[in-house]
Amino acid sequence: MSPFCAAVDWGTSSFRLWLLDGDGRVLAEGRGAEGMMAARETGFAAVLDQHLGAAGAPAGLPVVICGMAGARQGWKEAAYIDTPARLADLARHAVRVEMPGRDVRILPGVAQRDAARPDVMRGEETQLLGLLAQGVASALVCLPGTHSKWVRLRDGGVDSFSTFMTGEIFAALSAHTILKLSAEGEAAPDDPAFLAGVREASNNPATIASQLFAIRAGPLLGFAPRGAAGLSGALIGLELAGVRARHGDGGERGEVVLLSAGRLGELYRAALDEMGFAVRAIDAEAAARAGLMRAAQAIWG
Amino acid sequence: MSPFCAAVDWGTSSFRLWLLDGDGRVLAEGRGAEGMMAARETGFAAVLDQHLGAAGAPAGLPVVICGMAGARQGWKEAAYIDTPARLADLARHAVRVEMPGRDVRILPGVAQRDAARPDVMRGEETQLLGLLAQGVASALVCLPGTHSKWVRLRDGGVDSFSTFMTGEIFAALSAHTILKLSAEGEAAPDDPAFLAGVREASNNPATIASQLFAIRAGPLLGFAPRGAAGLSGALIGLELAGVRARHGDGGERGEVVLLSAGRLGELYRAALDEMGFAVRAIDAEAAARAGLMRAAQAIWG
Repeated sequence: MSPFCAAVDWGTSSFRLWLLDGDGRVLAEGRGAEGMMAARETGFAAVLDQHLGAAGAPAGLPVVICGMAGARQGWKEAAYIDTPARLADLARHAVRVEMPGRDVRILPGVAQRDAARPDVMRGEETQLLGLLAQGVASALVCLPGTHSKWVRLRDGGVDSFSTFMTGEIFAALSAHTILKLSAEGEAAPDDPAFLAGVREASNNPATIASQLFAIRAGPLLGFAPRGAAGLSGALIGLELAGVRARHGDGGERGEVVLLSAGRLGELYRAALDEMGFAVRAIDAEAAARAGLMRAAQAIWG
Repeated sequence: MSPFCAAVDWGTSSFRLWLLDGDGRVLAEGRGAEGMMAARETGFAAVLDQHLGAAGAPAGLPVVICGMAGARQGWKEAAYIDTPARLADLARHAVRVEMPGRDVRILPGVAQRDAARPDVMRGEETQLLGLLAQGVASALVCLPGTHSKWVRLRDGGVDSFSTFMTGEIFAALSAHTILKLSAEGEAAPDDPAFLAGVREASNNPATIASQLFAIRAGPLLGFAPRGAAGLSGALIGLELAGVRARHGDGGERGEVVLLSAGRLGELYRAALDEMGFAVRAIDAEAAARAGLMRAAQAIWG
């Protein structure tokens, strides 16, 4: 079976490539740590060529890319499309990269040009395009990550969205504050300390900076340590309180579509359950692939 | 005039010493960076001896100390007294350090042994004791710092308190996240970006992790950068929203006693003004000295 295109999800610190047939089935794949930051050093074309070769891509196979490769500091800037943004328009706004003998397109991100709530995404919009292929055109969508995105999807468009830098705050606090003495271990979704953190922070978001100090003070006074689970629960609970305040409790069907994978997805699912959100989980990587395929069909189909 | 005692405020990363006469007037002083962390390396007695000598303290002058020297990992542990804690009891619970030819006492900190809100302070209680000397026995007191303390003082006792790790969160986020690209400069209390951050965070504390991302996303989309002022305002506004939620809007006289000094004190004062708190500012260092003097009089007077 000969591939129809190569599809690439090029993040800040990760690279994933799939060779897809005309129905979007995976014929070969590759992944590596050559994200935007690394590729700025070694060259984007070289990284792409190496992965195409390793996957056995035929000469001239077209390539569609989403993610940070299209950032200003990436390979070639693919200017944002603005909210409200129709996902079907992504392919039309792709930029073409000069690469001898190959048609390479980078999909744009989405910008919310609102002075009160400026926000940007690159990569997540392609996962949302993949959701359309699964029949989800209107929903409140959660995409957990270093920078979690919450998207109000309406009739196949991004109506509005919010980025919560929850994951990066967790990393900074657990490595660079007194909490490093207390936030040891890994958070597990069924840890009572995780769920207690979710409850307390979501019920009392304003006092989060005091709840964080209590993670350190508690064990000093002989109370059971909450560890990394308590910290993670508090920060995710805070995020969910913010989502409830800003986006309401759910989409048209009263549920949250959780686009995620791995342990972080499990933590969000447990926190959403704890707070009474109805959750429909969809694999994030499959959605990215489906979105890239949909864009490729629009460009070359 | 011969000194009555030496008074020392020994913090985590700072050391301050005063020789005081019988009326609490300063006869000599010294300060340095030999806080608890440094003194653990060089020896507490050696640091104290060196500063006493430099200040010209006579042999045998008694010494009263507050702060982290009394922590478990300090010179000698001065066990916490528990809330509700009468400040007049601090002197009685001081621990004596063995030091040849000298009477040296370390005052205890205060602990809140509440499983839902465990909290500790070391040093701030002595500033509060100094407030009593100024006739402030009941108030809502704010002590800004790396770890800000908010204390409900009632009839000369610490009724309850909350520590917000606002300053340490600011330091971690501005040095170790994407905000380091956006949080440049210094926050000034009259900067509109500071006050805008205070307003937004105090009105919408739940979405703080999204407001923080907007500090980065705004300039990417061409909006005016908010810089360090915006980050500082957001985190202080969050703290004040938490205080309002937990401690109510003021003490018996409807005001906040702000125990502070320097630029951080000015930022808190501007934020409190912005949110409509009535503020009575008192110098934190003078309060610490007055509290140490009061304890010294109780011990040796």
